[in-house]
Amino acid sequence: MSYHELDTAVITMHCEDEKGIISAVTDFILTNNGNIVELDQHVDVASNRFYMRVEWETKGFGINNDKIGEYFETLIAKKYKDTHWEVSFNHQKPRMAILVSHYGHCLYDLLGRVDTGEWNVEVPLVISNHRDFEALVGKYNIPFHYFDFKKKAKEDIESEMIQLCEDHKIDLIVLARYMQILSPNFVSKFENKIINIHHSSLPAFPGANPYKNAFNRGVKFMGATAHYVTSDLDEGPIIAQDVIPISHRHSLEDLKRRGRDIEKIVLANAVYAHLSRRVLTFANKTVVFE
Amino acid sequence: MSYHELDTAVITMHCEDEKGIISAVTDFILTNNGNIVELDQHVDVASNRFYMRVEWETKGFGINNDKIGEYFETLIAKKYKDTHWEVSFNHQKPRMAILVSHYGHCLYDLLGRVDTGEWNVEVPLVISNHRDFEALVGKYNIPFHYFDFKKKAKEDIESEMIQLCEDHKIDLIVLARYMQILSPNFVSKFENKIINIHHSSLPAFPGANPYKNAFNRGVKFMGATAHYVTSDLDEGPIIAQDVIPISHRHSLEDLKRRGRDIEKIVLANAVYAHLSRRVLTFANKTVVFE
Amino acid sequence: MSYHELDTAVITMHCEDEKGIISAVTDFILTNNGNIVELDQHVDVASNRFYMRVEWETKGFGINNDKIGEYFETLIAKKYKDTHWEVSFNHQKPRMAILVSHYGHCLYDLLGRVDTGEWNVEVPLVISNHRDFEALVGKYNIPFHYFDFKKKAKEDIESEMIQLCEDHKIDLIVLARYMQILSPNFVSKFENKIINIHHSSLPAFPGANPYKNAFNRGVKFMGATAHYVTSDLDEGPIIAQDVIPISHRHSLEDLKRRGRDIEKIVLANAVYAHLSRRVLTFANKTVVFE
Amino acid sequence: MSYHELDTAVITMHCEDEKGIISAVTDFILTNNGNIVELDQHVDVASNRFYMRVEWETKGFGINNDKIGEYFETLIAKKYKDTHWEVSFNHQKPRMAILVSHYGHCLYDLLGRVDTGEWNVEVPLVISNHRDFEALVGKYNIPFHYFDFKKKAKEDIESEMIQLCEDHKIDLIVLARYMQILSPNFVSKFENKIINIHHSSLPAFPGANPYKNAFNRGVKFMGATAHYVTSDLDEGPIIAQDVIPISHRHSLEDLKRRGRDIEKIVLANAVYAHLSRRVLTFANKTVVFE
Repeated sequence: MSYHELDTAVITMHCEDEKGIISAVTDFILTNNGNIVELDQHVDVASNRFYMRVEWETKGFGINNDKIGEYFETLIAKKYKDTHWEVSFNHQKPRMAILVSHYGHCLYDLLGRVDTGEWNVEVPLVISNHRDFEALVGKYNIPFHYFDFKKKAKEDIESEMIQLCEDHKIDLIVLARYMQILSPNFVSKFENKIINIHHSSLPAFPGANPYKNAFNRGVKFMGATAHYVTSDLDEGPIIAQDVIPISHRHSLEDLKRRGRDIEKIVLANAVYAHLSRRVLTFANKTVVFE
Repeated sequence: MSYHELDTAVITMHCEDEKGIISAVTDFILTNNGNIVELDQHVDVASNRFYMRVEWETKGFGINNDKIGEYFETLIAKKYKDTHWEVSFNHQKPRMAILVSHYGHCLYDLLGRVDTGEWNVEVPLVISNHRDFEALVGKYNIPFHYFDFKKKAKEDIESEMIQLCEDHKIDLIVLARYMQILSPNFVSKFENKIINIHHSSLPAFPGANPYKNAFNRGVKFMGATAHYVTSDLDEGPIIAQDVIPISHRHSLEDLKRRGRDIEKIVLANAVYAHLSRRVLTFANKTVVFE
Repeated sequence: MSYHELDTAVITMHCEDEKGIISAVTDFILTNNGNIVELDQHVDVASNRFYMRVEWETKGFGINNDKIGEYFETLIAKKYKDTHWEVSFNHQKPRMAILVSHYGHCLYDLLGRVDTGEWNVEVPLVISNHRDFEALVGKYNIPFHYFDFKKKAKEDIESEMIQLCEDHKIDLIVLARYMQILSPNFVSKFENKIINIHHSSLPAFPGANPYKNAFNRGVKFMGATAHYVTSDLDEGPIIAQDVIPISHRHSLEDLKRRGRDIEKIVLANAVYAHLSRRVLTFANKTVVFE
Repeated sequence: MSYHELDTAVITMHCEDEKGIISAVTDFILTNNGNIVELDQHVDVASNRFYMRVEWETKGFGINNDKIGEYFETLIAKKYKDTHWEVSFNHQKPRMAILVSHYGHCLYDLLGRVDTGEWNVEVPLVISNHRDFEALVGKYNIPFHYFDFKKKAKEDIESEMIQLCEDHKIDLIVLARYMQILSPNFVSKFENKIINIHHSSLPAFPGANPYKNAFNRGVKFMGATAHYVTSDLDEGPIIAQDVIPISHRHSLEDLKRRGRDIEKIVLANAVYAHLSRRVLTFANKTVVFE
């Protein structure tokens, strides 16, 4: 889309499907002199659910930005059943925390995108249970927070991490091959706000050692999965996946080497979709508007 | 979609983009008590063009099927600029002619789909410049028309072919590896109604011998392209493509063998999209609503 | 490969890896004046196992076809540890039985390939637990054997099926969406000679209803898997897989529709690889020489 | 491959095909007590050419490293016709120069891989016709050489660049979206040692603006191509390609955004293959042993 220099608002919503929702939403925008630059909608017939993302120019729009939510709730959202909605503005930069451990390929990739301004995002902190990437993160002038799980209880560390994320008004936590399992308590604080990269094409090979298990099973495709983290490990809503063909010629080392590239691209695709408010989640599935 | 047992109408339209078109179209349907089962729209920002496909249940709809077009023209289409639209009904089976020469893989595949009822289509005739598949087509009780280009002028043969297609009210002509170039006169009679399969990923390797040329160039991917036929050879609007990785291990024979499978699937995807009225064409590009 | 008009022999072998095997095998062929037209080898470092497929022109070869096996065993195979080997000749057409139930897309595809002579194979019979495709198979003049599982015990039917396959010297049994589970007894008679198509990218979604389960899980890729049948359901060595991207836009019906095409192509790829002796199996994994 | 901690030698060779080459090469290694850890060979039947890559452990090998080439030439290479060969050792780190202009995504990706030690390589310099990435390159303590094409003649600048590359014993020059065309003189100094990334799936959309041209043509797949640079622009031997599906939903901006990821991965795959001596080039085609 080539309108990124404009000031725009985005509303994402989903609710039980019924007649006339698109009509109502677009009327709401048009009546108030909004110019729609992108509109996507989807009806999941199987679950009778309606999904929509609409983005419009706010210049000249008849409702002030800080009142749009209130008006939308009154005039639209509450008329439909089980409506979930969010309004955001492209001049508000989402704030992203990155959690990492020993493997750096996703971290390097994320930092590169942030540094070149590819994404509309700020990264106020990186958190790690190891010091491996302290120097790297320092190069990009991003504060690096190290926690030693051998010296402190996980519960206490998680409390500090939650505090840090709240202090920095974090909108999105990215687990860039972070090798610690987050507790249900932590996860519950950031529903649909934690994205993890798992190094297999879920639901194949959940848990530990997916590359080794894929190698041993002799599959002809391997992949990676980015998903929101829920308290069920590797069971959260899938945002993005990708796969590549492999053969007997590929050793376990080859799988790991090639897997790193899939991991970082899949994770980046998911983060991009989230940051641009293109991911809607319901009943453990996502609608991702490209 | 699981509503195929319903009676539905489909309107496809495209026009210059302006505010409120979706709203107007959905109002038109809702006001007349139509139940929308599928709606897709797209705005091409670069060319300021709006595309839409909407399908709704006709049971209980307030306008008779044979009047829908008239009302849509009056109430909607003529209010917008450069509007192209079509209305169709899923109980009308499109009628498809297949043209074939020496290679049978696409023909076999199409006949299989027709025979199993996978598609909403009738095939009243197959035309060929060779007798290779006369017996095969006979097995499926479809009339086979053979034309000998050595005995008659191409112009005369094409006149007969046009007459045949008109007599049989043909809606779609599929060139299933048909090895004769159709004249501009023939093509002009069936604009956006002739689908060809070209055995390369266009615009790479247009013209004759694409597999050989791909082999000689040493590319690492090969593919196939289904497109509407225009008077510019291999330049018509692309409907579907697919590709597969290849390597030095693949001989020219391997390319041809694997290419046959891509060709038939890509052609089938394009034919399916056309038959279900999911392809909109403008300015040599297609919008294909999945 | 463009040498298919030649008379060739193929030896496939695998054994514990040690120095000099390739050298020994190629010497065996060269010394006896064989012209190698294709040679592939692979060492699985993880399991220290050597795999090889070599194909050579038999014209002028110093050992008669019916003695090649004996000489190979004496001079080569028995010098290495745990050697498995097979010799075959391209003038021997493998004989293939097809088993089918209610879904015909794979059957149509296989029959088309057989009818056009795409493969070096004979199909002396089709077996089914339903009569759906009796007429179709009849069109291709292939005997159709129907078994009614409501009227006879499965055990008795399987005995008859085994007898049929033995009488017809069947080399390969293809389960073209055959919806009956074969007993361990049946399977044991045809080790690495039964190929099944499973409609998911195994190990994801084994068992019944893979499309529905994929739809419910919200995966972004779907696929199909062709594998040798073992007594562990959906756990046999994988020969071929393929996948395609899907999104929230695809209904369960769409998954089934698109899945049919992946299924038939993946199954065909596996059958082709088997028929051309390109599949070597060891420890529940395959080496597939393209 | 999991033997990377070993000291190994690699010989790559290609020559006119004839009987017994594999045998001769493996005998050469085995006789001198070498342990082969990887062997790949390929015969291009169409051009009657034999390609081979063999890697073996040098510990205990009967010929000193600095004599292997001489012995190989005498005992093997000169017995065959039109033989090209190279010997290298994994303890010799190839030295790579990176050339870049305004777009940084490939540079960031390369630097990340170098910094994490993913590749067996040293990068003694980065050259650019812009200052955009001077600070970035500095972070990784790599000398950055800026040339101002407005102030100096291209010929003079190229002379300096050649001198720099020679001074630093550069084995590989990577054009990471370098936006200057190298002169035939420059190219001739580094035959099969300059890798370029072109942002289309060649031969589709050569030259300038491939994304725009792909967008305008309405193709359903887009891609990137890494190739050796020859004096014919975009015509050199292709090393690696990749493609992704696109649709009408993707704007030109989307193509560029997604293209960046394909570009950097394809370029990295080509560089990896080159650095690990897996690319053999003959007659404008490559054999890439995975």
